[in-house]
Parts: sequence; C-alpha cells; structure tokens
Amino acid sequence: MSKPLILHTDPVRYGQAPWTEMEKIAEVVHIGQYSREQFIADLHGKYSNVVAIARGYLTGSKVGRFDEDLVSHFPPTLKYIAHQGAGYDQIDIEPLTKRGIQVSHCPDIVNASTADSNLFLLLGSMRNFEAGRRQLVAGNWPAGGFGAGVKEGINPTRKVLGIIAMGRIGRAFRDRCVPLGFEKIIYYNRSRLPAELEKDSVFVSSIEELVAQADVISINCPLNKATHHLISDELISKMKDGVIIVNTARGAIIDEQSLIKHLKSGKVGAAGLDVFENEPRPPKELLELPNVMALPHMGTHAVQTVFDMENWVIENVKSGLTTGKVISLVPEQQGVLDV
Amino acid sequence: MSKPLILHTDPVRYGQAPWTEMEKIAEVVHIGQYSREQFIADLHGKYSNVVAIARGYLTGSKVGRFDEDLVSHFPPTLKYIAHQGAGYDQIDIEPLTKRGIQVSHCPDIVNASTADSNLFLLLGSMRNFEAGRRQLVAGNWPAGGFGAGVKEGINPTRKVLGIIAMGRIGRAFRDRCVPLGFEKIIYYNRSRLPAELEKDSVFVSSIEELVAQADVISINCPLNKATHHLISDELISKMKDGVIIVNTARGAIIDEQSLIKHLKSGKVGAAGLDVFENEPRPPKELLELPNVMALPHMGTHAVQTVFDMENWVIENVKSGLTTGKVISLVPEQQGVLDV
Repeated sequence: MSKPLILHTDPVRYGQAPWTEMEKIAEVVHIGQYSREQFIADLHGKYSNVVAIARGYLTGSKVGRFDEDLVSHFPPTLKYIAHQGAGYDQIDIEPLTKRGIQVSHCPDIVNASTADSNLFLLLGSMRNFEAGRRQLVAGNWPAGGFGAGVKEGINPTRKVLGIIAMGRIGRAFRDRCVPLGFEKIIYYNRSRLPAELEKDSVFVSSIEELVAQADVISINCPLNKATHHLISDELISKMKDGVIIVNTARGAIIDEQSLIKHLKSGKVGAAGLDVFENEPRPPKELLELPNVMALPHMGTHAVQTVFDMENWVIENVKSGLTTGKVISLVPEQQGVLDV
Repeated sequence: MSKPLILHTDPVRYGQAPWTEMEKIAEVVHIGQYSREQFIADLHGKYSNVVAIARGYLTGSKVGRFDEDLVSHFPPTLKYIAHQGAGYDQIDIEPLTKRGIQVSHCPDIVNASTADSNLFLLLGSMRNFEAGRRQLVAGNWPAGGFGAGVKEGINPTRKVLGIIAMGRIGRAFRDRCVPLGFEKIIYYNRSRLPAELEKDSVFVSSIEELVAQADVISINCPLNKATHHLISDELISKMKDGVIIVNTARGAIIDEQSLIKHLKSGKVGAAGLDVFENEPRPPKELLELPNVMALPHMGTHAVQTVFDMENWVIENVKSGLTTGKVISLVPEQQGVLDV
C-alpha cells in the first residue's frame, strides 16, 4: 500500500527534522510558489489522492482563500487541513465541515510571542517612541531637545486599558500589562470569564462601554464576519479623544481608511499595528503617519514559536493519519464534526 | 527681608503651577539658553546671592558639567542643588559635599517609565522589530515574505536575562519581565538584595558570571567612575555569541565604538539603546545598523513622569528653604553631610 499524500504549501523554516521524520509514514510534497489555477489543476491531477494539506499564512498569497470555490476542487480523499497559526480567517470552515474535512489550527503556541509583540506596540504607541526614533534618525535631536522634540507620551498610571476579546492571547497580554500599573484593565468578551481567568481585569458588557472608558484599546479578537470592520468610523467617534489603538489580531478588524482619517485628526492619538487590511501591501499613507508604529505581521516571528507551530501542524496531520482525528480542531467544528 | 533667589536652568514643561506657587516664598529666575561663560559671570554678578539651583538633563548642554571648576564659582549663599532626574552623573558630588551644598535627585519617580522603555527596547531587540519595520517602510514586505524577510527573533522561553544593577529601576524592569517567561532572571549588584526584593531573580556574584550566562543583558546601573565603559571590548568578548544588550541607563557605561564593532560582526546580536556617549549626537553609523533600535533618551519622556519630576525638584528646593534639608539627598551625601 502506498503512503498517504500530504501537501505542504508553506515554506519549511525550522521544522526540517520533524518533516523528514514524517516521511516515514507519508509521502510529503512541499510546494513552493504556486498559482491558484495550477493548484486547482493539480488537485484534479497529480494530487487527486491528497489526504492532508498543511498550510500557513503565506499560502494565502499563493493560492488564495480556502473558500467554497477552492473546497469544491478538493478530492474526496482529503480529510485534514492543518493550519499553521492561531487565526484561520483565510479558511472558510463551513464548506469544509459539510465535506467532513477536519481543520486544525495552533492555539496556545502563539500566545506568548503575540502578546509580547502586542506589549511592544502598546508601549511604543503610548510613549511616542516611533516619532522620537524618526527624529533621532533624521538628525533632529540637537535642535529638538527632550525626546528630540516629540511630545511626551502617556504613562499607564491613571489610564484605563481596554482589551477586546479575552481569549488566550488577550489573557497573555493582560498578564504582561499588570506590572505596568494601569489604573484599571477592562475587557469585553462574548461571555464573561470565570474568576480564575479574569484576575486583574474587569468585564464590561459591551464594546461601546469598553471604548467609552478606555484610554488605550487592544484588539485581540479573531477576524470573522462579526468582527470585520468592528473598529469603524462610528465606533471610533465614541472613543475618548486621543485614544490609542493597538492591533496584533487581523487588519480587517479595523476599517483602515477610517483609522487613517482619525489618526490625522488626532481623535486617535496613536496606533500600533502588526496587521493590515491588505498584507503585504499596507497603505504608504498609513505607515508614514508619525503617530503610527507598524510591523510587518511579526507577532509570531520568533524562532521557537515558528518551530513549535511547524511541529504542531505536523502533530495534527500525524494524529489525523494514525487516529482519524486531528488534535486541535477549530472551535466551529468542535461538537459538529463527528470525530 | 528679600526672598531667596532660585535659579532654574531647565525648561518648565508641565510644572507651571507649582513653580508659580513657589514664587510666594522665593524669587524664581528661569534661565533659557545659557553659555557656561555667561553663567559663571552671572554667578559672580547678578546671581551672587543664589540659594538654590534647580537643574535637569538639558542644563548639561547649556552650561556643561557641574564640576569642580564650576563649583568653585558658586557663591557662598548657595545651599541646594535639586536635580531633575534619577541619574546625576553630570554633577560631581565631591566638590559640592566639601562646600556643604546639598544635592537632591529624583529616585522612584522615574522607575516605572524608565522600566517601560527598557521593556520596549528589550522586546524590540529580541524580536528584530526594528529591522522588520525598516523593511516594511522600504516596501520590501511583498518580496520578503514572513516578517518582510528579516530573521525570526528569539523568545524569552529558555533564555536567561541578566540585569546589571538591581536598584529601583532594575527591580521595576525585572517585575515587568517576569510575565514574559524567561527561563531565569539573574542580576549582579554590589550587594545581594534581601529576599523580599530579590523575588523572581537570582543573584550572581560578578559581572563576568552574569555575562557568561545571559542571553540578554540589561544595563541598569548608574554612570560613575566604576561603571564608565563597563561594557568594554574585553567584557563583550566574554559574552555569549549573539547576545542582546539593552541600555536605558547612561551611554558611557558602554564603550560605544566596541559595541559598534561587535554589532557589525554579530557577536552582539542586537542592541536597544535609549542613551549614548555623545548626546544629542550619537554616531550615524550606530543608528543605521539594522540590529540597533534606538531612541533619543526618552526613558522618562512621559507627561506624568515629567510633571512628577518637576514637582519633586520644587519640593526638594522648598524643603531646603523651609527646613534646611532637601528631601532626597543623593546617596554619596547621605550620612556624610551633616543634615
């Protein structure tokens, strides 16, 4: 009997050893640059016996969304999709569930490094560090005086931090913010957390209440239909003047054009952004604003995190092949797929 | 009786109200741009009855060091120097002690905001955020892929953080690093801390032991004769390959030319620097290295911190005028000056 075929559509970065190990029980094909057309053609051709697809963030820019259209081309042999990352918004779960295809992701593994990035952007935005850095590099320190002439930032003391969604990343971020000494850390979540997870933070029952109270807002919810453009022109208008917004979740949770408008007017005092609506091409206008500190989606860009994610993808595929069940099924399929 | 004369040689930023209040009990002269020559001339002339000088960071670039030479021009009426900042390395304490002039500084007030900046630079250096940001702004993300093509950073897990000097700022920084999950936080200090202050960190008995163990080194000691160029070519050569160095204390604690050499070779993996040997003109070569994240001395550049420091300077002067004793005498004068 031939070994089951696994397609891996993101580059191997640190997981060479476990992928090689996998070849003992499966035929592994690592595919590189790949167009959607070619991918679809091959799903009907040389990959028509594929059993599992291991994919990650870069797959989206190669073959596009895993949407109903693409899913319709998946052969009946396909049973498992293992996504390398916590957020799997590039994958439409519903058509896959209908087909009985299990989708796994990487919760937990990304929490620490994403929360660290979030903390970095929070501190940078609150303290005007990006503006200061630009003045420094431009040689404007001698004339500028203190902080090379940029306005003093704000301290966490007497300020309220609002966290939108208190999942694993939100809680890891909250834990890192406790020693900073915010007056209060509030959070909104679909449901209130049990006391042992809520520690040091206070539940508010609506996003509107959160933005009315918060001086600094951190976005830690997944992107889905309900959260798309959650941070809208209307919601921003309800925020405090000079509010600071930090986003390491997904770009499209913010209406970016509205954000730009309010960053220019000063309604939004500063933003720390690791994610954008149109990656890898965020608007130049946004990046150039002096009150924006931006990173190219580096939330999980750390050696150990990448290795652990690659390994977890492999473990999920292996579990599928050997037990018929992936390990970390996405929430939408839990209790829905009969696995 | 005329009111005592106070000279204030740094700009007023947020302390307008308490300075105005001070005018009830003193004649306050705020002096702006000022050469050393003019200052000395006036100390023998119109300011020859000065009782207190309130000074800060920018005073150094106007009138230069408060050294033996300058002190020799202070009139006998001068009793108090109130420094706005925790580090008072621009002031030579010995000649002032000999003259019986009390010097106060601002410990504690700066701890949180300096530790926050330290944390920002730590995260940025460990995670290659500055290199990523540069690639992003240069438009290199589309071609670069993950993190716009910069190398993945390191995670705190399984890494050792070494803190050089566990004073107030070192401890505030340590507390902020605990949630990051370092394998171990070690510190060197002239004397070991009592257990209640040592929590979550482990004492090592020499700088050499610290640099042998640490993957990331944070400099939190004051600048003085003993710490000048503490981070030397020789000490760097004893560090781990790829070590990360963060400095929010004082530039001259590092031999900057050696640091540049080792940043270029990769011996030092990255540096996060808020302070430089020659402020406000750090070497362009240093700022341009892709593994350097630099800020223009913004450790205390936050509204509340600045206001609290200005107020503390005023409180020290006021205490001197009304009780004959400043509140926060610098350590070198404690138990030495008969106050």
